[in-house]
Amino acid sequence: MLTEFDVIERFFTRSHLTRHTPGITLGVGDDCALLNPALGYQLAISTDMLVAGRHFFADTDPRGLGHKALAVNLSDLAAMGATPRAFTLALALPEAHAQWLAPFSEGLFALADEYDCALIGGDTTAGPLNLCLTVFGEVKHGRALTRAAACVGDDIWVSGRLGDARLALGVLRQEWALASDDWPAVQRALEWPQPRIQLGQALTDLAHAALDLSDGLAGDLMHLVKRSKVNAVVEVEQLPRSAILKKQPLAIQQHCTLSGGDDYELCFTAPPNARAAITALEKNLGLPLTRIGTITPFDPSQAPIIWRTANHAPLLTPLRGFDHFAPHAP
Amino acid sequence: MLTEFDVIERFFTRSHLTRHTPGITLGVGDDCALLNPALGYQLAISTDMLVAGRHFFADTDPRGLGHKALAVNLSDLAAMGATPRAFTLALALPEAHAQWLAPFSEGLFALADEYDCALIGGDTTAGPLNLCLTVFGEVKHGRALTRAAACVGDDIWVSGRLGDARLALGVLRQEWALASDDWPAVQRALEWPQPRIQLGQALTDLAHAALDLSDGLAGDLMHLVKRSKVNAVVEVEQLPRSAILKKQPLAIQQHCTLSGGDDYELCFTAPPNARAAITALEKNLGLPLTRIGTITPFDPSQAPIIWRTANHAPLLTPLRGFDHFAPHAP
Repeated sequence: MLTEFDVIERFFTRSHLTRHTPGITLGVGDDCALLNPALGYQLAISTDMLVAGRHFFADTDPRGLGHKALAVNLSDLAAMGATPRAFTLALALPEAHAQWLAPFSEGLFALADEYDCALIGGDTTAGPLNLCLTVFGEVKHGRALTRAAACVGDDIWVSGRLGDARLALGVLRQEWALASDDWPAVQRALEWPQPRIQLGQALTDLAHAALDLSDGLAGDLMHLVKRSKVNAVVEVEQLPRSAILKKQPLAIQQHCTLSGGDDYELCFTAPPNARAAITALEKNLGLPLTRIGTITPFDPSQAPIIWRTANHAPLLTPLRGFDHFAPHAP
Repeated sequence: MLTEFDVIERFFTRSHLTRHTPGITLGVGDDCALLNPALGYQLAISTDMLVAGRHFFADTDPRGLGHKALAVNLSDLAAMGATPRAFTLALALPEAHAQWLAPFSEGLFALADEYDCALIGGDTTAGPLNLCLTVFGEVKHGRALTRAAACVGDDIWVSGRLGDARLALGVLRQEWALASDDWPAVQRALEWPQPRIQLGQALTDLAHAALDLSDGLAGDLMHLVKRSKVNAVVEVEQLPRSAILKKQPLAIQQHCTLSGGDDYELCFTAPPNARAAITALEKNLGLPLTRIGTITPFDPSQAPIIWRTANHAPLLTPLRGFDHFAPHAP
């Protein structure tokens, strides 16, 4: 059995990163880390807690879990247009085993290295498996993309394709089955989400409001609409879906794209005169950016979001955001 | 049953604080919080995870738990000499009940208000009870008290009195008993620790190195000695103890002061010419500050810390720091 100090020393101490990353004076090993924010920048801070049996299956590949735990936090930085700088990791583990910790820390640091994001502190303890990360990013003063800045007339965009992570979860839960050839791509969407950091950074010059899709488009877009005090119309047929998801019955497609979670794509609003620049950005990043609707004036007599279908057909799925206290397994 | 959004809205949203606290542009409710660090200051960051059944009993008074969860984090800021500014809270709860959440948030915010420390973000989820806080403080550039700055010839000091929290834990674990009149004071030491913020701030002008005592003096002082590359001599009889602890057999006194945990007092080193100023500070703060030993030159042929007793009597307790993966209950 490893001790707490073995765990920190062997798997979470990387002095080369904390010493050479600009802006970090003191990393792991003191009472606090010390961060020197750059002049003219704000610090963007986000925290997420992932619980075994709730956000992931306890037997999930630890390498993917290390990646995902950081990815979902970096996705919040991406949604603000911030550049990742550092993170802390608090980890409760039933038992400290090298065969779990080694791949977990490899998955974690592979992504951290990709974005020069330094581990600057943390905590390890025995307990039911729980990962709590807090991430720190920098964004130029006054340039962060918030949820409250959508303007009437803005286009609504989403990055990537929606629903594949929920499609994969449904397979693991035996709600539906897929052809075995189709499994690896959707499994990757669920277990290896890619934070849209470059997109978020580029959008600080183009977009008005943004957020990341973690709990499903229907619930997440509602947050944006409410905080911006506007309404919205979304064309459900326009929602970007993978070829694999498009093979499913329409009800499953709608459920996965609208009420699924774990997409970690960005949803943003931008004025119509930004369309050409956004299309250029799409080519530049090699990442689909799809216009799915419009921001409309606030009208309390209407539903905040109208989900428009072909021929005004009713939606085939009840719309709700993800409630972490509702009774459901991961 | 409360939903996730009820929980945030009812118990953890305090817009008056996040709007009026200087340096915080955006608090709870967006993808990230935005913090504007003051010019010439560094940001001190610390994170701690508290697990039910490990760090506290699951039936602990939730008001005290709210206080303690923040207090132990603020204690890390105190140890750096930093001024608290903000914190995030991630909370996993088996079930969301108002009768637990209301007193928990009251205890939390009573302490947060005392130090103008704003809740700027967080996460709530279902899961085994787990609290993960990350705190942010400010300290003048280059003035933070680290563990690595102890100098040969420095006096070693501790604040307050040591061992009462461990004495209380032993009562709860039925390791020993106390007269009922003595219980409230030691229970208070265990459940309502006071972060030594003002002391830490004042010490940035007086002390060389500091850390907070969370895992017991023997283990914690070892961290300071190792990082400062020095040795130390401590006079065990000098360790400040309450009148209640002094009634116990010497073995229990030594165990509670040296290998106990949860003291959340500061241990610091300062040059002998600071003695008068430290004594004045003691009066000023109404907080005992006791000189317990001396920093000596690094000597690998010696034990890093010599625990000196009257007449060179052997210590009556094995010395070890708290290992969070060792098999023991809270």
